[in-house]
Amino acid sequence: MSEADRRVYIAGPEVFLPDATELLATKKSICGEAGLVGVSPFDNEVSGMDGAEATAFAIYRGNLASMSGCSFAIANITPFRGVSIDPGTAFEVGYMCALGRPVFAYSAEPLEYAARTRRAASSEPLVVRDTAGDIAVEDFGLADNLMIACGVEEGGGRTFVADEPPADRWRDLSLFRACVAEIAAMRARGGD
Amino acid sequence: MSEADRRVYIAGPEVFLPDATELLATKKSICGEAGLVGVSPFDNEVSGMDGAEATAFAIYRGNLASMSGCSFAIANITPFRGVSIDPGTAFEVGYMCALGRPVFAYSAEPLEYAARTRRAASSEPLVVRDTAGDIAVEDFGLADNLMIACGVEEGGGRTFVADEPPADRWRDLSLFRACVAEIAAMRARGGD
Repeated sequence: MSEADRRVYIAGPEVFLPDATELLATKKSICGEAGLVGVSPFDNEVSGMDGAEATAFAIYRGNLASMSGCSFAIANITPFRGVSIDPGTAFEVGYMCALGRPVFAYSAEPLEYAARTRRAASSEPLVVRDTAGDIAVEDFGLADNLMIACGVEEGGGRTFVADEPPADRWRDLSLFRACVAEIAAMRARGGD
Repeated sequence: MSEADRRVYIAGPEVFLPDATELLATKKSICGEAGLVGVSPFDNEVSGMDGAEATAFAIYRGNLASMSGCSFAIANITPFRGVSIDPGTAFEVGYMCALGRPVFAYSAEPLEYAARTRRAASSEPLVVRDTAGDIAVEDFGLADNLMIACGVEEGGGRTFVADEPPADRWRDLSLFRACVAEIAAMRARGGD
């Protein structure tokens, strides 16, 4: 089999841990012991970029290139800063699924989604163990994890963020209208 | 332009709201006013499935088919049950990016990711406004949002969940090793 057939993309929020470099090296070693080649988001050189946005896009493009070159992914879907998977990892699961590459996943949380979400709701406010402490907070001035924000921009889309919280967070449709108007304008320009 | 060129996939966690049907109908109307066709996750018929897992996969496959048939997506990335985007929506952003379809996004949360995450950490425990109340909790007995869990299975992968929480949630690698072993076994079978 070719080199690409052995490549496994390592997805997960451990890139934000203070010892991420060592942890990813260990994961690559574990892959190597099984005859596989672990590919880490840290393998891409993104230093020397001019500003946060350029850095975010360099990381995004690097991760996409890495995924494209891998035949598999292993995703750490352990809940991160909430009741669910890290959103960058969720993006990557979706991306690899679209490419038809098998994704293997694991979670350190034994409670299934519904159970832990109900528990969180009943113990209101929800205690998110992983928010505090020494886990890095990605700070590119973006609306969410860079894989989401950059994916939107890179594909020709745009992210609209409220100037102030709407009265009804889930039912205010002014920003949805803005998206629709952008798409209509793009189509009118023949830009799609 | 063809019908497909006008189709917009509507992604977001409002499918869990008690008035989701009405809200999605309104979103489709807004698309229609702009000459676009809004496609909702609720457009797929998934009734009559035998059991939670079959229902989850039917929804997953329906959403993938809907996305494949759309030229655009509009994603509601407002933080949901944590500091980030709903993971099903994140999966869909990644999926559409892989297909090369422009994604437009909006968020009702004015604070950018780093700022709101630091605020959440400093006010520990994090108050997740959207966990409680009348927003439905997806309950298919899965490890996370069905788009993640089903994406893994459907692509030939597998999800490993801890029997009990490991001592170090982010550094225990036993489940990662299980994923690696599965990939090695799959390759040995020539199953990739």
